[in-house]
Amino acid sequence: MEGLKETVAVIGAGSWGTALSMVLADNGHEVHLWSHNPEQVKEINAEHTNGKYLPGVVLQENIHAYSSLEETLAGLEICVMAVPTKAIREVLGKIRGIQKEPLLIVHVSKGIEPDTLLRISEMIEEEMPAELVDSIVVLSGPSHAEEVSLRRPTTVAVSAKKIEAAERIQDLFINGHFRVYTNPDIIGVEIGGALKNIIALAAGISDGLGYGDNAKAALMTRGLAEISRLGTKMGANPMTFAGLAGLGDLIVTCTSVHSRNWRAGNLLGKGKKLQEVLDNMGMVVEGVRTTKAAWQLAKKYEVQMPITNALFDVLFHDVDPKDAVDALMSRGKTNEMEQFNANFEQD
Amino acid sequence: MEGLKETVAVIGAGSWGTALSMVLADNGHEVHLWSHNPEQVKEINAEHTNGKYLPGVVLQENIHAYSSLEETLAGLEICVMAVPTKAIREVLGKIRGIQKEPLLIVHVSKGIEPDTLLRISEMIEEEMPAELVDSIVVLSGPSHAEEVSLRRPTTVAVSAKKIEAAERIQDLFINGHFRVYTNPDIIGVEIGGALKNIIALAAGISDGLGYGDNAKAALMTRGLAEISRLGTKMGANPMTFAGLAGLGDLIVTCTSVHSRNWRAGNLLGKGKKLQEVLDNMGMVVEGVRTTKAAWQLAKKYEVQMPITNALFDVLFHDVDPKDAVDALMSRGKTNEMEQFNANFEQD
Repeated sequence: MEGLKETVAVIGAGSWGTALSMVLADNGHEVHLWSHNPEQVKEINAEHTNGKYLPGVVLQENIHAYSSLEETLAGLEICVMAVPTKAIREVLGKIRGIQKEPLLIVHVSKGIEPDTLLRISEMIEEEMPAELVDSIVVLSGPSHAEEVSLRRPTTVAVSAKKIEAAERIQDLFINGHFRVYTNPDIIGVEIGGALKNIIALAAGISDGLGYGDNAKAALMTRGLAEISRLGTKMGANPMTFAGLAGLGDLIVTCTSVHSRNWRAGNLLGKGKKLQEVLDNMGMVVEGVRTTKAAWQLAKKYEVQMPITNALFDVLFHDVDPKDAVDALMSRGKTNEMEQFNANFEQD
Repeated sequence: MEGLKETVAVIGAGSWGTALSMVLADNGHEVHLWSHNPEQVKEINAEHTNGKYLPGVVLQENIHAYSSLEETLAGLEICVMAVPTKAIREVLGKIRGIQKEPLLIVHVSKGIEPDTLLRISEMIEEEMPAELVDSIVVLSGPSHAEEVSLRRPTTVAVSAKKIEAAERIQDLFINGHFRVYTNPDIIGVEIGGALKNIIALAAGISDGLGYGDNAKAALMTRGLAEISRLGTKMGANPMTFAGLAGLGDLIVTCTSVHSRNWRAGNLLGKGKKLQEVLDNMGMVVEGVRTTKAAWQLAKKYEVQMPITNALFDVLFHDVDPKDAVDALMSRGKTNEMEQFNANFEQD
């Protein structure tokens, strides 16, 4: 398939949807980029910029913006869903109303739906009739959009129930600065990407409290262990959490000032209240909803998740961040390996 | 044992030996801190500072410095070895000459000896007659000395062949800001601490080249995978590499400007030559020797270590860092899980 030029729909013109459109355009594909904002559509088509999300970046001429979903998707086989997790059901509802042929849907969002506790591919399956879905692929990994748009070296993982679909998407996106690896474990890839935002919030809180690099590294290490423990119970391969969509994404999200989840945590650590932080950011902070979902999942699967629980108390029960982090640090003397043994007590 | 006050020898008054002395002093123990430098001994005893290594920090009164090894060790049971890996054999040779009773030796250095390919506990076993060794414990984890001396929250792992020895050291050091976990896997704890310095050099190079957070996260992820692959072949538990002495230490070393190995790599990435960098630093850069040892280990155990090999070529064969990192990025299309399968092909 490599070398074949396609026309691809990208739904959502935020920073990530736009950066991925640029990767596709670099590979010679035509991109139909959908935005709900007519001003943004005009700017992309007339100025070849998307100043709100990727300031200073020039988009290629083979990226065409649309405000009509019908025009965006007309006759296309591949659709990249790059809208916030919160908006996925609404946008899929509209696509369902106009689409006639099966789509290969690539989702690039990160989250787990509170209450239903569904992964994003499961939400897509629920919203789209089977005859309109060719396959569902997830693309995830350590990939700040800003850097991808500047063609800095980046690696991601793609996964799907049918490996051929993942390989088709690997061929579509791969190039010299954007490396795409396949991974057969769709559950692990989706959970890793979603749950790392919880640890990024916690790492931001620790930094906001001025606790330093040692404390943050410990939180990230034990955070990944608890994600891995839950994910394994949910059917994931524990090794996925040591890969790009787990560890890789965790590192980039916890250690970069680009990360919204880290920034939100940082403000909480500095003493701001949750609502203030969310108002301040003006952007979606996926980790807040995901913390609620993970807290529910930990109960459902009976997995110990001390960092998730502490963060849940900070976000939703007004517990002081310092008290929460200090409590995490002052647990009893333990053997480090106990946390991992739980990984292999699968039912 | 918790609560018992001991007198402990700490050999080496660099930043880490001094910070660990402070933890022991906080717990009410007496510390005999040895330095080869009489000026430093005078400063510590008279001023209660160690300005070269921990500027601005005040040492407790129960830390006493000595320049005589004999006086330092007289009658003591526990000896913390905090000298650079390069100096360990020489210092142990001197201790062997004066010591009469068995010692519990805690080593806190990170490295693998080139050519002999021995871990530090194995070097200690080789240098010290069995009747002078009660046990050997390793203490390792994400722990910048500067932060420990400021009592910022820190976690480390301790390991030994005899778990009781590790537990005794856990009791000695543990307190509210310094958390100590036991781990039964001494091979993994020693290898994780040593080999992470290689990845820190590589991450520094990537940052020096201006490649960004995505590239660094990918290098760290795939770097940990290759460390884990080698360590497993050497007899370690793969889960140790996901713990404090593996992932935790990797994170802190690759993402902090405190790290000498990262700083050395950063200068290499900016175009400086190795000798220039080493002259510039004026401090030991363990990762350089460890890269040679790891390259030799990869050959011996027939393990693929592309990042280690690339770094070896940069350090010892004058390969351009940019060419080395670009070559790592442009390997063929692969399945991410292939790297992990090797972990479980143990002989």
